[in-house]
Amino acid sequence: MDNMKSTMIKSLYRQAQDYVNKDITISGWVKTLRDSKTFGFIEVNDGSFFKNLQIVFEEGNIPNFKEVTKMPVGSSIIVCGKLVETPNAKQPFELKASSIQIEGLSTPDYPLQKKRHTFEYLRTIAHLRPRTNTFSAVFRIRSLAAYAIHKFFQERGFVYVHTPIITGSDAEGAGQMFRVSTLDLNNLPRTEEGAVDFSQDFFGKETNLTVSGQLEGETYCMAFRNVYTFGPTFRAENSNTARHAAEFWMVEPEIAFSDLQDDMELAEDMLKFIINYCMENAPEEMAFFNSFVDNTLFERLNNIVNSKFAHVTYTEAVELLKKDKDKFEYPVEWGADLQTEHERYLTEQIFKKPVFVTDYPKDIKAFYMRMNDDNKTVAAMDLLVPGVGEIIGGSQREERLDYLEKRMDEMGLHKDDYWWYMDLRKYGGTKHAGFGLGFERAIMYITGMSNIRDVVSFPRTVNTAEF
Amino acid sequence: MDNMKSTMIKSLYRQAQDYVNKDITISGWVKTLRDSKTFGFIEVNDGSFFKNLQIVFEEGNIPNFKEVTKMPVGSSIIVCGKLVETPNAKQPFELKASSIQIEGLSTPDYPLQKKRHTFEYLRTIAHLRPRTNTFSAVFRIRSLAAYAIHKFFQERGFVYVHTPIITGSDAEGAGQMFRVSTLDLNNLPRTEEGAVDFSQDFFGKETNLTVSGQLEGETYCMAFRNVYTFGPTFRAENSNTARHAAEFWMVEPEIAFSDLQDDMELAEDMLKFIINYCMENAPEEMAFFNSFVDNTLFERLNNIVNSKFAHVTYTEAVELLKKDKDKFEYPVEWGADLQTEHERYLTEQIFKKPVFVTDYPKDIKAFYMRMNDDNKTVAAMDLLVPGVGEIIGGSQREERLDYLEKRMDEMGLHKDDYWWYMDLRKYGGTKHAGFGLGFERAIMYITGMSNIRDVVSFPRTVNTAEF
Repeated sequence: MDNMKSTMIKSLYRQAQDYVNKDITISGWVKTLRDSKTFGFIEVNDGSFFKNLQIVFEEGNIPNFKEVTKMPVGSSIIVCGKLVETPNAKQPFELKASSIQIEGLSTPDYPLQKKRHTFEYLRTIAHLRPRTNTFSAVFRIRSLAAYAIHKFFQERGFVYVHTPIITGSDAEGAGQMFRVSTLDLNNLPRTEEGAVDFSQDFFGKETNLTVSGQLEGETYCMAFRNVYTFGPTFRAENSNTARHAAEFWMVEPEIAFSDLQDDMELAEDMLKFIINYCMENAPEEMAFFNSFVDNTLFERLNNIVNSKFAHVTYTEAVELLKKDKDKFEYPVEWGADLQTEHERYLTEQIFKKPVFVTDYPKDIKAFYMRMNDDNKTVAAMDLLVPGVGEIIGGSQREERLDYLEKRMDEMGLHKDDYWWYMDLRKYGGTKHAGFGLGFERAIMYITGMSNIRDVVSFPRTVNTAEF
Repeated sequence: MDNMKSTMIKSLYRQAQDYVNKDITISGWVKTLRDSKTFGFIEVNDGSFFKNLQIVFEEGNIPNFKEVTKMPVGSSIIVCGKLVETPNAKQPFELKASSIQIEGLSTPDYPLQKKRHTFEYLRTIAHLRPRTNTFSAVFRIRSLAAYAIHKFFQERGFVYVHTPIITGSDAEGAGQMFRVSTLDLNNLPRTEEGAVDFSQDFFGKETNLTVSGQLEGETYCMAFRNVYTFGPTFRAENSNTARHAAEFWMVEPEIAFSDLQDDMELAEDMLKFIINYCMENAPEEMAFFNSFVDNTLFERLNNIVNSKFAHVTYTEAVELLKKDKDKFEYPVEWGADLQTEHERYLTEQIFKKPVFVTDYPKDIKAFYMRMNDDNKTVAAMDLLVPGVGEIIGGSQREERLDYLEKRMDEMGLHKDDYWWYMDLRKYGGTKHAGFGLGFERAIMYITGMSNIRDVVSFPRTVNTAEF
């Protein structure tokens, strides 16, 4: 995209030989400006690339020299000039300006001055923070990782399904949800019994924001075999932590004629693909994270990309953890969910690489997971990675209608609400499996950023829905 | 993806030479089955491809011959056998089965029997309809078109931004919205004055579902130069038409250092790219639509791909339409919005190709559109295409703070709510522009499907939020 015939700074860095000693036009925002009496330097970023371009300007060549030297940081400019190599300088080349047109002035109180700001402060100016190095890097990685996910699945023939955001059903039979409504709160319609009359709401019934597209995704899996969803999901949980947001994006593939083993292979391939894609397509940003955000990042990511992931059953994992039980705050007991400390110990201390924990007790997992022959565990898997713990959760789905109904009864679900889900087992059901990847957690993992609020453009958390 | 070591039927069709006369395993769903005493034929679809594979099976080779012949349509099977060419038959090859394993039986009351069903009926079984030819084609095209959009923008260096779904602001200063809340409707908290106390709601204030990601997108445009959003948007409009859904996906690029001309070039390039991508990557599906859904489809799409789109100002368009004013139900008058009949007349009768109508009266457009020098019109554009009318709407944005504030005052907007949007004009604002493409309308256009409910997996419309 050559907006208004500007050359992108990315092109200069990637194909310098095409531009050196040629007259070009660039446009972008002033990051720094320093000048002496008769000449000056401007670092310009044009948004196309992590690095800036250095502009040199001289009083003799620029009619508006004085005006240019007075520009506040953040101003936008359009610069014509010749690109010249600078073999002895830090940067490989600079632009000798023949004209500098001021497109839009900033002000002296522009909040992003050269000094460092805390991430907390930058959240209050979330509309400006992508202009900083850190957030420019975060959100370019987020964009690339999103594309990597599409590329991974599309190149493998998966069909992308947009499952509904507004739902009349509660996909996991659990999870706090946001109500979606157009009812007038000052004049709520009531039934004869005095209850709120949702039949008068927009959809003629009570509706909520989805917590997962999985169940709807399964319907498309039974038609297209290999499908994935990638969209926003919601949890109305009152968890004010660095890892929870009320609105987040989730990737949920679903594969037919497939078992838990296929599911784990897919998850491993996908995660490696995303990381490789980011490393290859944003080396400058990744180097920045490794230098300034998390010094262990490259080591950690290389360990993922180059490892064959380990596998351990939940039952074996519990035995392993019990041997070191004095190391933990929470007890380790078969039947209880693993805590983050247990998960991290498994992946960081015992296996020292990503590990799939499989075959969890049925009572701590969802109704749709396939019962194992032991009748105690289900064909579930969680992928644990060093530094974080769980990053992916999945399972083989129960394809046997009688087993499924039994579990729904045991868990007190209303089977009438799931007629269409049960239909999938009546009409040519197959073995199938899938998993969910919380996209923000993946971005945190890939960038080393430690707060989910810093990998979402405008975060939605308890008491926060700004911008 | 080779789930459980099956070969995809798509691979057989695309690289037949690799498989002919070899033993392979396929798995999929029975579309038709016919048999005589000692042999039979099964058409199998495995979801990877629009076309089926023909299986031939003989009593002598298949131990469960009787059982196989009794399978209801819709059953899932795994078949081993040799792929043999059939030079004199309709299909290029068939699979001579050496074994047929029944993975999951269907039932004789499976709703998708060979007879034709109405689209209305199929909406009531939206969980099964992607198994039909029509909906298999629709939703594969939808997936490919979504990927084409990402590919188009990513290959041009655009950054994909996930703008928020839950919003505390009303992006267009208009449009009916869905409230998002966790308040207990049976026990609403009240302020001292008796109003609903939204400070006790999840986000500490009233929140709604977004109607557009544009304003938030602009903030990222001022950092990354070229950005796009692609996500769900919502309208709580009580319009029960074939073209309105309460939940739909929208693509919204935003480009800095760019004017309306750049914006139109981008829109034209994007639309052509999406159509070409679908034609190239799903020729079977597209041929199906052209044969069975809309005989003018190829002509229409080729006309788009091969035309240089026309341009006309709103003022000129009104003059042109006035010459034929007796052809219209609604009057044509400068200052009034164009009706669909006017839009279609312009693109179908006058220009006979896609046409951008530009520079609309300011009073019928949004506050953020850039004022033209005539002080009467704004730098807006609508793209009209034959067969539909408007498919894209965009504008150059008002980058001049004083003009923007004046328009906000005139339109009665609360400027305090837009402090961050106005900041973009204070801190190095630039010319910029963008547009919105309603994704479902684009899919309707590319497939020839005439009801938006038939291009959404599980449509949400007035009184409908099933599944």
